[in-house]
Amino acid sequence: MPNEIRKDYVLDRWVIIAHERSKRPTDFQAAPQERVEAKTCPFCPGNEAMTPPAFLLYLPSAGGIRRDRDRDGERRKDWLIRCIPNLYAALTPREPQPLPADEFRTREDGVGTHEVIVESPVHDEHPGRARVEQTELVVQAYLDRLRALSRWAYVSVFRNHGRAGGASLSHAHSQIIATPMVPRTVAEELRGSARYLQQRGSCPFCDIVEGERDTDRFIYENPSFFAVAPWASVYPFEFWLIPKRHQSTLSQMREGEKGDLARAMRASLGALAGALRDPPYTYGVHLAPTSGENERFHWHLEVYPKLSIHAGFEDNTGMFINVTPPELAAQSLREALEGRV
Amino acid sequence: MPNEIRKDYVLDRWVIIAHERSKRPTDFQAAPQERVEAKTCPFCPGNEAMTPPAFLLYLPSAGGIRRDRDRDGERRKDWLIRCIPNLYAALTPREPQPLPADEFRTREDGVGTHEVIVESPVHDEHPGRARVEQTELVVQAYLDRLRALSRWAYVSVFRNHGRAGGASLSHAHSQIIATPMVPRTVAEELRGSARYLQQRGSCPFCDIVEGERDTDRFIYENPSFFAVAPWASVYPFEFWLIPKRHQSTLSQMREGEKGDLARAMRASLGALAGALRDPPYTYGVHLAPTSGENERFHWHLEVYPKLSIHAGFEDNTGMFINVTPPELAAQSLREALEGRV
Repeated sequence: MPNEIRKDYVLDRWVIIAHERSKRPTDFQAAPQERVEAKTCPFCPGNEAMTPPAFLLYLPSAGGIRRDRDRDGERRKDWLIRCIPNLYAALTPREPQPLPADEFRTREDGVGTHEVIVESPVHDEHPGRARVEQTELVVQAYLDRLRALSRWAYVSVFRNHGRAGGASLSHAHSQIIATPMVPRTVAEELRGSARYLQQRGSCPFCDIVEGERDTDRFIYENPSFFAVAPWASVYPFEFWLIPKRHQSTLSQMREGEKGDLARAMRASLGALAGALRDPPYTYGVHLAPTSGENERFHWHLEVYPKLSIHAGFEDNTGMFINVTPPELAAQSLREALEGRV
Repeated sequence: MPNEIRKDYVLDRWVIIAHERSKRPTDFQAAPQERVEAKTCPFCPGNEAMTPPAFLLYLPSAGGIRRDRDRDGERRKDWLIRCIPNLYAALTPREPQPLPADEFRTREDGVGTHEVIVESPVHDEHPGRARVEQTELVVQAYLDRLRALSRWAYVSVFRNHGRAGGASLSHAHSQIIATPMVPRTVAEELRGSARYLQQRGSCPFCDIVEGERDTDRFIYENPSFFAVAPWASVYPFEFWLIPKRHQSTLSQMREGEKGDLARAMRASLGALAGALRDPPYTYGVHLAPTSGENERFHWHLEVYPKLSIHAGFEDNTGMFINVTPPELAAQSLREALEGRV
């Protein structure tokens, strides 16, 4: 089958899908995951003093969890989830200062937040292998922080896994960066969804859930979530988790949906780790901006395994070459899922 | 100095510039360049049979060079420049076939070309250390191929250097991919330049040459070319080479300008290798599309050193974090240039 060029459902983004020499999971197994190990992990229980005080802690409690924070210079050691400022913050919460600029050189002060969510006291409790209850707590922490950060234009919730995925520490953790402007990718998805609605009268992500279920790109579903290898995947083994019910941001999830999200993460990220020997990846939650008329946006989570390098062609053109067709990726992930759900 | 967020001169692209923990060249030297070595280099003289026949050769000749190609299954061995089809072509030149598609799943046949330009018979004659005459031949080969490929919508000329730069072979080579559509990045630059012209009555790249000369982002210039660390650099030590005279594509270069481009490449890429111990990088020539009203486009070459990883935040938002402010990058590159030009 010759190579083809596919366009994303929503974005004006083209991807060369390489059928001719397409790569299966075993083709990637020559490069084993490099483990990032600190001698003493600053995120493991007992080492809390190596990090700033937590501004949010989930503590075990008879009825479930109790929210608290570190106080008076003391660090709690009996936490289930620990939210702390990033020591190397890209953006910091302070009053923005005006900076000298001109029409030609646009700039704004670097205000916002950069936070770390330590996802578990257990070093290796990553979502693909974690207890579902623990991942539900991670999802709850995303929600709590999203609400707390609603004064910023956008809240980026993401996860780096493995060195090639940008993780400098291997302990299970997510990051949150709140930005003072709506980022480019979100703006494009909003515009693309509006255009799609105008042209077809529906939401593209609702259409993906309905339209891809009976195709060879389908990976997994449960009552609330749907996993798919998207039509114009940019990365080998890329997949998206989409809530089946139309909702523009995480905080519109209903109570039972959080558990279904945790189960979908365990199933799909577990299958990815199983099929490709725990590869590096990043994931990011694509959310509506915190304010504005964004009901048409359909939030979802995009997972990008980092198995090949985007280089000169991608840098030069904004087009991509994907050496694993999404149909092949979905098949491998479905096979890896068997017995797992 | 606190972090700030800068916007590109032309694109709607924001970059967090990290002043607080900014990284100097020595901070990157922990990760030495990994050499990619084949036992037998298919691009070295004598091994031509390991690759397809060349469709363009530059052969030494009394008056300079003579153009030829491999004929009758024979491979010439006395070449100065060798242009061959990429064995793992992303796109191939053939008649496009209609593919089943629908409104929701857009696709086109993968037609185009994917070529390799072997830049020198000398394995390590990379442009930062090459004889200027040799790099002039490389520039001439870009021009020849650009003319030959003018039936395609766009011709992407790029170079991958080092394993993290996507190079699978270490012998000095460039690549060319001709695409059947105008890629996203070029379209954005065209739109951005048109908007800039409308708002300010000038070309942004002409304004960069004039406006950045007396700033701390200036790196180098000669009679025809200008090197600058751009205001909103996305990568540490990123720089651009811009022709001083407004011209929309490579083929508008005058005779003397080719040598000046080769000298600018030798100076700036040599400085990069000197300052950072031959780091991986990609470069791409940003050109006007092959047809249409593109006189306003100002072609240039963008060099992206690959010293840090773009990960979850960049993937999620399309914003970037750059840990080396362009002013610091330009200073290091200017220092590395001393004695070199």
